[in-house]
Amino acid sequence: ASSPSGLVFCWSTLQIPCVTTEHRGEYRCKVFNLYHQAWSDTATIAIGPSSITDASWVEVDRGLATDKVALLIGNMNYIHHTQLCAPISDVHELTNLLRQMDFKVVSLLDLNWQEMHSAVTEFLLLLDKGVYGLLYFAGHGYENYGNSFMVPIDAPASYTSEHCLCVQNILTRMQEKETGLNVFLLDMCRKRNFYDDVIVQPGLVKVTANIVFGYATCVDAEAYEVKREDVSNGIFISFLKRRVCEDEKVTVMLDRVAEDMGRFEITRGRQALELRSNLSERRSLTDQIQTAECSASYKARNLQWAVAHVLPKSHCLQFDCGVKVQLGFAAEFSNIMVIYTRILEKPKEIVSCSAQLTDFPQGVDVDLKKSNQETLLEAGSLLLIKEGLPSPEAPSLYTRIRSLQRLRTELTFTVCLHYTYSNMDEEVQERQPVTIGKPLVSKLNLHEPRSDHVCSASSSFSLDSFSVTEGSSFTEGFASVDSASNTWLHYAQTGTDSSSANRQTSSRSANVPEETDCPEFFDSPEPLVASKSLPHSQVNDLNYKFSDMCNFHSY
Amino acid sequence: ASSPSGLVFCWSTLQIPCVTTEHRGEYRCKVFNLYHQAWSDTATIAIGPSSITDASWVEVDRGLATDKVALLIGNMNYIHHTQLCAPISDVHELTNLLRQMDFKVVSLLDLNWQEMHSAVTEFLLLLDKGVYGLLYFAGHGYENYGNSFMVPIDAPASYTSEHCLCVQNILTRMQEKETGLNVFLLDMCRKRNFYDDVIVQPGLVKVTANIVFGYATCVDAEAYEVKREDVSNGIFISFLKRRVCEDEKVTVMLDRVAEDMGRFEITRGRQALELRSNLSERRSLTDQIQTAECSASYKARNLQWAVAHVLPKSHCLQFDCGVKVQLGFAAEFSNIMVIYTRILEKPKEIVSCSAQLTDFPQGVDVDLKKSNQETLLEAGSLLLIKEGLPSPEAPSLYTRIRSLQRLRTELTFTVCLHYTYSNMDEEVQERQPVTIGKPLVSKLNLHEPRSDHVCSASSSFSLDSFSVTEGSSFTEGFASVDSASNTWLHYAQTGTDSSSANRQTSSRSANVPEETDCPEFFDSPEPLVASKSLPHSQVNDLNYKFSDMCNFHSY
Repeated sequence: ASSPSGLVFCWSTLQIPCVTTEHRGEYRCKVFNLYHQAWSDTATIAIGPSSITDASWVEVDRGLATDKVALLIGNMNYIHHTQLCAPISDVHELTNLLRQMDFKVVSLLDLNWQEMHSAVTEFLLLLDKGVYGLLYFAGHGYENYGNSFMVPIDAPASYTSEHCLCVQNILTRMQEKETGLNVFLLDMCRKRNFYDDVIVQPGLVKVTANIVFGYATCVDAEAYEVKREDVSNGIFISFLKRRVCEDEKVTVMLDRVAEDMGRFEITRGRQALELRSNLSERRSLTDQIQTAECSASYKARNLQWAVAHVLPKSHCLQFDCGVKVQLGFAAEFSNIMVIYTRILEKPKEIVSCSAQLTDFPQGVDVDLKKSNQETLLEAGSLLLIKEGLPSPEAPSLYTRIRSLQRLRTELTFTVCLHYTYSNMDEEVQERQPVTIGKPLVSKLNLHEPRSDHVCSASSSFSLDSFSVTEGSSFTEGFASVDSASNTWLHYAQTGTDSSSANRQTSSRSANVPEETDCPEFFDSPEPLVASKSLPHSQVNDLNYKFSDMCNFHSY
Repeated sequence: ASSPSGLVFCWSTLQIPCVTTEHRGEYRCKVFNLYHQAWSDTATIAIGPSSITDASWVEVDRGLATDKVALLIGNMNYIHHTQLCAPISDVHELTNLLRQMDFKVVSLLDLNWQEMHSAVTEFLLLLDKGVYGLLYFAGHGYENYGNSFMVPIDAPASYTSEHCLCVQNILTRMQEKETGLNVFLLDMCRKRNFYDDVIVQPGLVKVTANIVFGYATCVDAEAYEVKREDVSNGIFISFLKRRVCEDEKVTVMLDRVAEDMGRFEITRGRQALELRSNLSERRSLTDQIQTAECSASYKARNLQWAVAHVLPKSHCLQFDCGVKVQLGFAAEFSNIMVIYTRILEKPKEIVSCSAQLTDFPQGVDVDLKKSNQETLLEAGSLLLIKEGLPSPEAPSLYTRIRSLQRLRTELTFTVCLHYTYSNMDEEVQERQPVTIGKPLVSKLNLHEPRSDHVCSASSSFSLDSFSVTEGSSFTEGFASVDSASNTWLHYAQTGTDSSSANRQTSSRSANVPEETDCPEFFDSPEPLVASKSLPHSQVNDLNYKFSDMCNFHSY
C-alpha cells in the first residue's frame, strides 16, 4: 500500500498505530516482481473523530486551503522618489517560489495609485471562504499610528495617506471574504511620515486568528536592499527565499528567517524582521488545496486568474521572400511580456536575415535601446524560465514590453524582416503588421477606476465578475487557457492537477521553474560601495551597495 | 562523568561526537559501588569556535542572560471602573512560574498611577546590559494609534493617556539599559479609547531585535477572564501557564499558546493571542543566568531586589499570663503580606486562648472582616506556598495586609491575647504593641514621585541607588536577607546558587513552591452564568462567568 506520504509498504497488511487526520487520503496496493508491477483499485480513507472510538485519536490540525492566491507588487521606478533596484528580482523570485507551492500569483511591477488600487480589487475577487491570501509589497512605504502605507510610483514628493494604499484597509476587505489565512509580507520602510498627519481609521479588524504580518524591518526602522551588478535583492527576500517553502507553520518559518537575518552583521541594529501574528491554527504556505466541496468556485477562480495571464499564441509569419519567422511570447511578470522572433526557414540565396519588432504605438512601454536583443539579459529581462522559449541554440531576438496594465487597446506592432541576398550588397526590408490582442494583465484594464466593493459578496461568485470592460475577453481567455500551449507556465493546468490532493511533489515540480541558481550574495566579489544609508565604517569588509527603501532620510 | 544536562555516564571515557556550545560547563567523574560514592574534582570545559578545528563545529546560539527580572502588575479594584477578578491569581501563578525559572519577580496588586509609575522606575533600576526584562500587566487597558496603555486603579471615568502608562514608552526606557530580551505580556483589552485623541509619541524604538509582545487579544478586541467560585483566571494566563516554562524560544512558546487558545471554543472570534516579535536570537525564558563577568552588578541587583522583599523576622511574644505567641510573616505579593499568630505555649490553667491583631493605624489596608481568620482562604489570601508558614496542624490566625506600597511609616499594631482561665467564665485580654518596620515593597516608597531617569546610566550602578528615602533601610535589608530565615521563599539565596550555572534542576525546585494543584477549568462543574460580554447562546455548554477586561462596552 502506498500512503499519501509516499511510503510503500511491502507487507500484506498496513497498520497505523496512532491514526491522525494526516493519514486521510487514498491508498492502493502494489504487486510487483522484477519485471512487472500492478496497482490495485484505490481506497479512499476518511478519518474523523467519529470513526475512532478509543483514546488514540489525535486531531492534527493541518491546514487545508480552498485555494491559494498571492498578489506581489514591486515598485522601483518612482517618479518623484529614489529609484529602487531590488523589487524586480524580489518579486520575480518570490513569484517562482509561491508558484511551486501552488499559489495563483499575480505579480506586477511599477504601479501607480490607480493601478495598485485596481490590482488589489482584482486580488480580492480571487479570494473566497477558506482561501489563503498573500500580499507582498516591495517599494517605498511608511507606518503612521500603527497603519502601514504602500507608496505607488506616482506619489508626489510630499505624499500622504491619500496618495498611498493602507495595508490594514486591505486586511479588513480580505476578512470580508472569510479567507482562511491572511499573510502580509511588507518589504518597505516603517519610518514615520511627518508630512502625513491624517489618522487613517481602517475598518475594525475582526478576531479571525488567521492574520500574519512579516515586516522586513521594525517599527521606526528602514529596510535595505543589496545592490549588485547582476541581480539585486532586498535583505528581506535574500533571507526569506531560503525558507519560504519550508513545510512549517508560517509563523515558525518567519521566525526562522528572523534568526537568519539576525546573523547578518551588516544590518544589525538597522533592520530586523518583525513577525506579527494571531494565527491560531497550524497553517503553512505549503498547505494542500482541498477543492472537493467547492470545485465550481475553485475552477472559476482558476479561470479568473488565468484570463489575466493569457499570452498570445505563438505565430508563424510567412514573408514573400520565402523566410518563415516564429513570433513567440513569454511572461516575465503579470504586466511584463517578452516577445521573441526566430527565423524558422530561409531560402538558400538569403545569407543574413533578422526579424525585428518596430512601430509600437505610442503609450506602449518598450525601452527601444533594449529591444531586439540577442539575449534576455540584454533585453533587460530577468526571465529565468526557459519553458515556452526557444532553446538557446536557436538564435532569437528578444523585446520586452512593460506596463501592460496601461494598454488600452489591442497591442499592434510591425515585424520588420531585414535580409541580404548572397548576390547583393544592399539590405532588403519586408514588413508585416501584427495584432496580438490584449496580453496578460492588460485584459483587466487596471488603469480604470473601479468601485472597491464590486462583487464583495463572495459566495455569489460570478464567472464574469472580472470582465469589467470587455464581454468578449472572457471567451477569448477561456479558449487560450484551454489550449494552454502558450499560457504562462501552464499554470492553470498545474493548479487543477494538484487539486486531487495527491502529494505528488515530483510531478508538480516538473511544471515549475528551476530554482534560480544565484550565488549567495555573501560570497560575492563585487567592489565595495556604500550608500548614504550606511556609514562607511560599518561596511568595511562587505561587498555591497546598500540603499534603503525609504526616502525620508533624503530630505 | 556528569554532563551539565545531568546525564551520568558509567564508561571510562566520555565522547561527544558533535560538540556544540551546549556542552560547555562543568564536568566531574563519579565513582561508586553499592555502598559508597565519590566525586572527582570538577573540570570546566570551555567551548568556542577557536577550540574546534574541524567541520563538526556548530554554534548553538543559546541565549545567556546576565540576569532575569520581571515586573508583574495586576489591577482589579478599580475605583471608577468595572472590578476584575482574575488578576490576583494570574499574577500569583505567573510569579511562581517565573521564579521557578530564576526570575527576580516584583509582583504588585492594585496600583494607582503614581505607584505604577514608581514601580516601573524601580523595575528599570534592576535592568542592565544583557538582563532579560519581562513586564506583565493584567487589568484594564486600551490601544490607540499603535500604542498600548495600562490603566491604573485610580483612573477617572473618562481616562486618557495622561492617566495611564504607555507600554512603548517603557520599552524605550528598557532599551536604554541594553537589556538582552524585552518581553511584554499584556493581559488587557486593546480596543480604541475614544476619549483619548492625544497622539502619544514615545521615543523611537531602536532595532535591538530582542522585543517580544504577547498580547492576550488582538487589535480592536477585548480580553476576557473566567469567573469561578474559587480561583478566577484570565483566559490568557489559563493557557500561558501551561507552556511558559517550556524550554523553547519565547516566540515559539507563545505561538503554541496561541494554538492552544485557538482550540478554546468560547473565545473563538472574540479573543486570540497576538504575538509580535523581532527577536532574532533563540532566547528563552528558561535561559541560564551567566554572571561570571558581571558578578558585582549581579549581586547588587540581587540585593536591590531583595531589599524590597524583606519580611519582618518571626517574633516570639511573651505575655504576663504565661502565654507565648509566635508572630510570623509571609509574602503573598510584593505588596501584600500575611501575618499569622500561633500559640506556642500556654499554662495549663488557661483553657482557651487566641492572639488577634488589632489597632492597625489609619491608612493600613486591612479588611477587618477578613482579619484573624483560621485559614488563609478565609483571610482572602491565595497564598499556596506553605514554606515559612506554620504547618496546618498548628492552629493559627491569619491577617492579610494589602497595599504595602502606601505605608509611609513603620507598621505598628497590637497583638491582643484573648484567654479564659479554667475556673473563670469571663474572657481576659492582654495587649502587646508591635512595630515591624517597613516590610516588603513598602521600603521603596512607591507612593512618592520620582524622576524617570534616576541612575539611567546603568553601568555606573550604585548599591544605594534604590534607597531613595532611607539610608538605613539598606543595611537592615542586607541583614535580613543574609539571615534569610523569613525572606520570601529564600529567593535571594536561590538566585545566588543558580548563578553557578549548574543545571541542578532538582535542587533549584526545592526552593520553589509546588505547582498549584488547580483542576483544569474546562472540567469545572460550576453553574453557568454568562456576563453581558458573551451572548447567552454562545455559552450554552460552558460553566463559567465571563467578564471582559475592558470597560468601553459598558458605556
